[in-house]
Amino acid sequence: MKLATIRTPDGTRAVRVDADHLIDLGAADLGDFLARDDWADAAAAASAVIGSASDAEYATLIGHPSKVVCVGLNYATHITEMGRPLPEHPTLFPKFADTLIGAHDPIVRPEETQEFDWEAELVVVIGKPVRRASGAEAEAAIAGFTVMNDITCRDWQFRTREWTQGKNFDSTTPVGPVLVTPDEVGGVRPALAISTEVDGQTMQSDTTGDLVFDPVALVEYVSTMIRLNPGDLIASGTPGGVGHARKPPVYLAAGQTVTCTIEGIGSVSNEVVAG
Amino acid sequence: MKLATIRTPDGTRAVRVDADHLIDLGAADLGDFLARDDWADAAAAASAVIGSASDAEYATLIGHPSKVVCVGLNYATHITEMGRPLPEHPTLFPKFADTLIGAHDPIVRPEETQEFDWEAELVVVIGKPVRRASGAEAEAAIAGFTVMNDITCRDWQFRTREWTQGKNFDSTTPVGPVLVTPDEVGGVRPALAISTEVDGQTMQSDTTGDLVFDPVALVEYVSTMIRLNPGDLIASGTPGGVGHARKPPVYLAAGQTVTCTIEGIGSVSNEVVAG
Repeated sequence: MKLATIRTPDGTRAVRVDADHLIDLGAADLGDFLARDDWADAAAAASAVIGSASDAEYATLIGHPSKVVCVGLNYATHITEMGRPLPEHPTLFPKFADTLIGAHDPIVRPEETQEFDWEAELVVVIGKPVRRASGAEAEAAIAGFTVMNDITCRDWQFRTREWTQGKNFDSTTPVGPVLVTPDEVGGVRPALAISTEVDGQTMQSDTTGDLVFDPVALVEYVSTMIRLNPGDLIASGTPGGVGHARKPPVYLAAGQTVTCTIEGIGSVSNEVVAG
Repeated sequence: MKLATIRTPDGTRAVRVDADHLIDLGAADLGDFLARDDWADAAAAASAVIGSASDAEYATLIGHPSKVVCVGLNYATHITEMGRPLPEHPTLFPKFADTLIGAHDPIVRPEETQEFDWEAELVVVIGKPVRRASGAEAEAAIAGFTVMNDITCRDWQFRTREWTQGKNFDSTTPVGPVLVTPDEVGGVRPALAISTEVDGQTMQSDTTGDLVFDPVALVEYVSTMIRLNPGDLIASGTPGGVGHARKPPVYLAAGQTVTCTIEGIGSVSNEVVAG
């Protein structure tokens, strides 16, 4: 199944996205819907058509996740090519929910940054509460996967020793368009092509099968530290090819379109506009 | 005024805390109450007594802040004595809301850490929405101040280059007991004694007048990056005297009581219990 949160004239709605139709799930937001114990059965059984899939306007996938945990340095090939050893533990940093936007919304480039960069990421969406999850519990807690462009202001990221402020400019981070359940992408450790294009030029291209810490391992690790709630997001890191690492560096400018795509899920594709 | 969120047999309630009485504010949580445009007038005008101040059981001050932004390296004397230059920008990291507990709740020491440490902090509580606040707007956005013990698992903090995972163990971080409005503590840049005691032994002792980035500067800086919403918290950093920096290091053990106090606001005082 593909699930999403769409915008309607009466506010947002959680929907199942079929080939042709949007099917109402009886909740305003996919995060609220995933909080139901029976969400998977309820999503499969829903049948009330409320629109055409081709006309869907996607809100950010989960409006108010209780946490968005991001992972750095997680693609093995990229780490190795940089001459670094593979990490023993995941590197974690946050996104605040107020950073999130819809899959096709404009990205407002803040006037305060000169180094506005992309990062295509596979995102794990949590479907049931877990703490200190075993491997089996972690697998069962994964509702599905989506796409994030973990937009980053590199100059702010490296102002201090913590990355948080470079990762958290308001309304910069598209997530969506849909959650795809694991059965549609080969399970809870999917190996899917992941890429970024800027104005049609490929900047990142890798496979999510190259993750050092796969989705199940990430749910286990993060839940050791803190509970994970339905609708929480874990962004699993980005492969090589970000603008900051290019020689010379390349950054996003107003008027460009940046598109992050994961095979079997879809794309977040956004115009960059001046802040 | 002093405001708080207390526990009652029917759930939590936002209250004004007078010398003898708890006055109902008509909301379940202080965060909900601060979302009212007229919260200051409404708090001053409230008059329905719902309990005795001496019997109050404090919930965490704000149940579900949309963000908790913490600041590192912000006490000038401590930075200078460590031989470091004063920072040009604040170092920011997050707490997820699921880390927060009440002012007198037990702190569960996770079995996964061997280095469980304290950090007394003055916390700014946001009272109105702001983005890219000017100095005057930042001053007006400060609802008041409270106390946090920014409990930290040092071994997890230093596992990777990002501090997030050492700062975010579930249900470890007391915040409260009350919000005190600026007029009661000398304004929006208060110079108040701040201290930590472990089983009665003083471990930290400084003044909040020593902050490199004061509360107004922090609201300006963080709001440059992202909107601040009513009930959001900015923890302004800790002075010297943490356990990890002692020679030899000292960490919290089950059975100990750790108390962080700020003059004019109050204390968070918590027993450490085995996880």
